[in-house]
Amino acid sequence: MKTSGGSDAAKRRAGESAARTVDDGDVVGLGTGSTAAHAIRALGDRVDAGLNLRGVATSFASRELAVERGIPLLGLDAATGPGGVGIDVAIDGADRVADGDLIKGGGAAHAREKLVDASADRFVVVVDPSKEAAALDRPVPLEVLADGRGVVAEAVQAAGGEPTLRRAERKDGPVVTDDGNLVIDADFGTIADPASLAATLAGTPGVVEHGLFVGLADELRVGTEDGVRVTEP
Amino acid sequence: MKTSGGSDAAKRRAGESAARTVDDGDVVGLGTGSTAAHAIRALGDRVDAGLNLRGVATSFASRELAVERGIPLLGLDAATGPGGVGIDVAIDGADRVADGDLIKGGGAAHAREKLVDASADRFVVVVDPSKEAAALDRPVPLEVLADGRGVVAEAVQAAGGEPTLRRAERKDGPVVTDDGNLVIDADFGTIADPASLAATLAGTPGVVEHGLFVGLADELRVGTEDGVRVTEP
Repeated sequence: MKTSGGSDAAKRRAGESAARTVDDGDVVGLGTGSTAAHAIRALGDRVDAGLNLRGVATSFASRELAVERGIPLLGLDAATGPGGVGIDVAIDGADRVADGDLIKGGGAAHAREKLVDASADRFVVVVDPSKEAAALDRPVPLEVLADGRGVVAEAVQAAGGEPTLRRAERKDGPVVTDDGNLVIDADFGTIADPASLAATLAGTPGVVEHGLFVGLADELRVGTEDGVRVTEP
Repeated sequence: MKTSGGSDAAKRRAGESAARTVDDGDVVGLGTGSTAAHAIRALGDRVDAGLNLRGVATSFASRELAVERGIPLLGLDAATGPGGVGIDVAIDGADRVADGDLIKGGGAAHAREKLVDASADRFVVVVDPSKEAAALDRPVPLEVLADGRGVVAEAVQAAGGEPTLRRAERKDGPVVTDDGNLVIDADFGTIADPASLAATLAGTPGVVEHGLFVGLADELRVGTEDGVRVTEP
């Protein structure tokens, strides 16, 4: 299900350029996916070179990579909350970007990604040009309570979408998220009003988290064949 | 944490009167809590007397009681969804009722309750008079992802509320819901605009489901010392 388009060189430029913006002492949200992984590897190199930082993982996968690269980790519970140290910057990818809004969740990690990305003082999105579009036009991943999948499917249809339960590979049956829930990919075609759809999905019983990230991105870094294009949505 | 006010006789009148409205062949959502339990027991008596119905449980507790009372059960997945048989009527209690809107979740079952209650063609709320108020003025239970509790606590404070992680009795640490999540009781004092607060809470990352049931109730049955008061919000 992961969006696999885009050259690895472009992803690497985006991810590595974001890693260079991290300051000594920062708490850094570590995103999920192939482009964010380049950022994590580059942060690991900076830790090796003496930079003092602590990471907050957005998924099992990003945690595993961070451990492998020697990045000290902080629990999301210790980083956030009224007594938390806070997250200075989050670096994360996206499956689709249009006008600064994102679709995420190809890796089924969007619930935890949204917790980290929305908590960060600065949320930097790293993508290659294949993720850019004039409008959000991909299915929206919905993390749903297992027993709520029927209710959510009906609600998606009522909102003009086509729901598909995400099937697993290498296990029978559905994909199960790191939090033990299921994923419905909800295809609304081209999304004219992401904020309105986000509110509808958020208010649907059974939806734990939807993959629309509206108004959250602070900086967009698009790796190209010969550089990085940086914009602030 | 369950609201324990109200006389058992009043609760019984409310619950039993709702059970009498169920028709032969109905699929019935079975609520959670002491008043809904009276409805389940009365439905069990009607099944004994030959009524043909199938129940959909809103919680471990309501399922257990339904099994004990011989009510045939249907999974929420079979009852709902594009191919589901549908839920004809749901009978459920509330911790607070004002102007037809509810606060639920004292029993930490509000996520599954909302799935069932919102899916039902008719949602009948059964309470005793101690649950009625001029405005919703109790803490709102929030089912939250374990790792999201800090983010949610900050968001509750930003919205003018006071968050308290619900601690368990008979186990160390926090209450864990039937779906494996935590509960934050968010005290906003008297809630002036439940619909607006519901939208804010629904859009907060980490909130699996909030306990505000706005615009969902079709019928309110209040058991009193000498009868049942029935209104349609």
